[in-house]
Amino acid sequence: MTHNEPYTQLQDLDREIRNLDSIAQLLSWDQETGMPPKAVTGRAEQISLIEGMVHDRVAGEEMASLLEGADTSDPLVRMLRREHDRAVRLPRRLVTELAKQQTTGQLAWRHAKQENNYEAFRPYLEELLKLTREKADAIGWEDDRYDALLDEYEPWMKSSTVDRLFDEMSSFLSSLLARILDKKAVDDSFLFLHYPEEGQRRFSREVSEAMGFDFSRGTIAESVHPFTIRPGDDDIRITTKYDEGAFKTAIFGTIHETGHALYEQGVAPSYVGTILGQGSSHGIHESQSRTWENIIGRSAAFWRYFYPRLQEIFPENLSSVPFERFLLAVNKVRPSDIRTEADEVTYGLHIVLRYRLERKMLSGDLSLRDLPEAWNTLSEELLGFRPETDAVGVLQDTHWSGGAFGYFPTYALGNLYGAQLFAALRKEVSDLDEQIAAGHFHVPLSWLTEKVYRHGAARTANELMTSVSGEPVQASYFARYLEEKYTGLYGL
Amino acid sequence: MTHNEPYTQLQDLDREIRNLDSIAQLLSWDQETGMPPKAVTGRAEQISLIEGMVHDRVAGEEMASLLEGADTSDPLVRMLRREHDRAVRLPRRLVTELAKQQTTGQLAWRHAKQENNYEAFRPYLEELLKLTREKADAIGWEDDRYDALLDEYEPWMKSSTVDRLFDEMSSFLSSLLARILDKKAVDDSFLFLHYPEEGQRRFSREVSEAMGFDFSRGTIAESVHPFTIRPGDDDIRITTKYDEGAFKTAIFGTIHETGHALYEQGVAPSYVGTILGQGSSHGIHESQSRTWENIIGRSAAFWRYFYPRLQEIFPENLSSVPFERFLLAVNKVRPSDIRTEADEVTYGLHIVLRYRLERKMLSGDLSLRDLPEAWNTLSEELLGFRPETDAVGVLQDTHWSGGAFGYFPTYALGNLYGAQLFAALRKEVSDLDEQIAAGHFHVPLSWLTEKVYRHGAARTANELMTSVSGEPVQASYFARYLEEKYTGLYGL
Repeated sequence: MTHNEPYTQLQDLDREIRNLDSIAQLLSWDQETGMPPKAVTGRAEQISLIEGMVHDRVAGEEMASLLEGADTSDPLVRMLRREHDRAVRLPRRLVTELAKQQTTGQLAWRHAKQENNYEAFRPYLEELLKLTREKADAIGWEDDRYDALLDEYEPWMKSSTVDRLFDEMSSFLSSLLARILDKKAVDDSFLFLHYPEEGQRRFSREVSEAMGFDFSRGTIAESVHPFTIRPGDDDIRITTKYDEGAFKTAIFGTIHETGHALYEQGVAPSYVGTILGQGSSHGIHESQSRTWENIIGRSAAFWRYFYPRLQEIFPENLSSVPFERFLLAVNKVRPSDIRTEADEVTYGLHIVLRYRLERKMLSGDLSLRDLPEAWNTLSEELLGFRPETDAVGVLQDTHWSGGAFGYFPTYALGNLYGAQLFAALRKEVSDLDEQIAAGHFHVPLSWLTEKVYRHGAARTANELMTSVSGEPVQASYFARYLEEKYTGLYGL
Repeated sequence: MTHNEPYTQLQDLDREIRNLDSIAQLLSWDQETGMPPKAVTGRAEQISLIEGMVHDRVAGEEMASLLEGADTSDPLVRMLRREHDRAVRLPRRLVTELAKQQTTGQLAWRHAKQENNYEAFRPYLEELLKLTREKADAIGWEDDRYDALLDEYEPWMKSSTVDRLFDEMSSFLSSLLARILDKKAVDDSFLFLHYPEEGQRRFSREVSEAMGFDFSRGTIAESVHPFTIRPGDDDIRITTKYDEGAFKTAIFGTIHETGHALYEQGVAPSYVGTILGQGSSHGIHESQSRTWENIIGRSAAFWRYFYPRLQEIFPENLSSVPFERFLLAVNKVRPSDIRTEADEVTYGLHIVLRYRLERKMLSGDLSLRDLPEAWNTLSEELLGFRPETDAVGVLQDTHWSGGAFGYFPTYALGNLYGAQLFAALRKEVSDLDEQIAAGHFHVPLSWLTEKVYRHGAARTANELMTSVSGEPVQASYFARYLEEKYTGLYGL
């Protein structure tokens, strides 16, 4: 295919934007992994300089004129247009005010959480919500103001669809949870013995390597909150965190981030370094981290391969723990305060809680005065308990304090996408469990790369789901997956 | 002092350039310390993008018009004008060609060195030399074309001054060397026993910390070739290298780089983040790394403080080695092939060798066909031996292959500057040795910060030397320092 001159110019401009963006990612990576503490002020200035340059190019005259009349059926044009349109609709004043308010909001939230004082945070949240409404209106929406926010993280998704999916999901999660809670609680105390860091480090790396993480194009470092980042072409980095008293943190954290990384490393070389060289959406990205962490990483087949090695590294903790007991322990289901530590069954309920509240906050149906009580009531309804404090309740997550309304649903959408894609994989690879139990992780990896990863952002979430599974996202696949797994594990 | 509007604009533009430059430094830092190998192509593109942005700003219309009529007695204006003038004089074509030729030249040099094949490298060196002459002529010069190159690394220094200083220096180095070689060779074999990395790491960090390196504004990492870099305000990083069979590499390497870092960390806060927030010249910078590494770091006083601790960490290697024997070993003088491993006495002769050859190459007095033979002959004359191969002779260093003609003399100028400054310090602090032997490194550090570091690039090398020692740089201080030290050590 030959392209005309403006198209080549568009590619060059896109390339420059992506290079600047990956430089901003390196600045963040370094801030979280190696920067000396007092460098923080200068670093903020560097990041804001680069982000300003990105914005100038994305929203600028040159981009506007190159996009004029360009063929939007071309995936590159489609994504650049989307990015451009969102950027030009936001007035500079609003961008600056939001950035400022997010910084002060996060500081205020951190203090408020430490002191368990929601009221101290409320004025900041009020201001953020006001600016977020302005932002949504500036971007524009048809049926629901929330759609303008959701679209930032999950392009082209509508809240009416999320409503329907989440209603169905919360209903089957609640009923499954009730049946599990009727059974005797699982004893997983041996997972909280002392696991020396060195062994965790070795094992995590072995698992990541076996899954297919390409260390010639990536690295693993440590940070307080694990994440995956792309500071350059052929440069995908993940972080993890070692807790000697909670062995699961590092291993499942590493598997989760490796899932994100495999997606990024699997993008077709022709898309790398362009706007298409990233995941299709936050939800699809999360589907892959969760597929590797949960569907594969907590399966019997996975541990049939890895448990002997784990016992070898930690004989004092695990040599007397039989396989079945270990498997049940890493799949223990029990409602708990903290979303990020929730199991597969209750996780979605944590998300539904947040999603319903942020929709009501945005629409004005819920006053921020009443937010803590609304949180606690809904927690009781969905999860069966009221949080003991606001710190582990309404103040638990950083998202709202950073103005990230519309982000939460992508986590649970990830579970739905993931289960649906995995069902297609299972249908096509009949001996999948045997392959995984033999350590042949390239079998699921090749399939996922072919169907999902290599397309990068050239296919929308909906296009991916339809092309791979024959229909748009449904909640039923996740329901079936959980039903089958936990019926077996818990003898329901 | 209040400034007019254009001056404030000049400060803002300077600030943006320095931010971009420090981002480029982070990109390099990461490349040397943590980047996965296949990211190298993308990284080169990122660095060249940022460097292009720096060049556009330094050489651009805005800078030109802001500098017009600005007061050049202001150090900021002086340095910005200097940078601007050099940048606008170089045609873009030449900059691009040089960058390309440097990249291919370095690759060719690496292969040629590996295969000990100078002739394979010669065509590249020929081309680099041609472009370097063009560059010198584009920049402009009065008495000697070499001055245009030297000025890049040692602003306002002239080759006629270097000629005079180096003639004097090589003469006293040669005569001192001859007297030392008359004595029995020092046995330093215990320095090459096995020194486990962990102990080296601990000791190096302790030394760096004691010297005054501020870890809240800096870090230490590892790289193949140690260096110091400033990837942001309040962010000075050094690297080191641990060789378990050569203990001196890490410890003296760390002291050397810490010397550079103390200089950078000592710049006055009002200069940080401006063009003045760097060292005065390469030579002055090197004077500080060498003062800390050699004058302080190989002194009896220094080891009186640190040797007991070193013995404690490596008792199996050092408990039976008396202090005097250790001190003599770390000050062993012996001509050897490799410049970077040379002692204080022969180091300057390695530099004189390179300086004389590059001057002749540039003037055309020496054909590149005859360069290896010229190297070997001069090596015999200055150091007393002919290198066994070109790989450890004419192909030893990377500088020429990267087009860095005019760089070498700054290393030896560093020794001259350092000794002269240190003589002034010694004159003002009469109990300096006692202070160092007591571990009071803040005593020399405060003095050097007050006299040198805090001024950043606001004073030229010559202004610094004159203000601190009362006269321009002289070779005699270094001669006296060596004479006194080695007369004592070797009983000459």
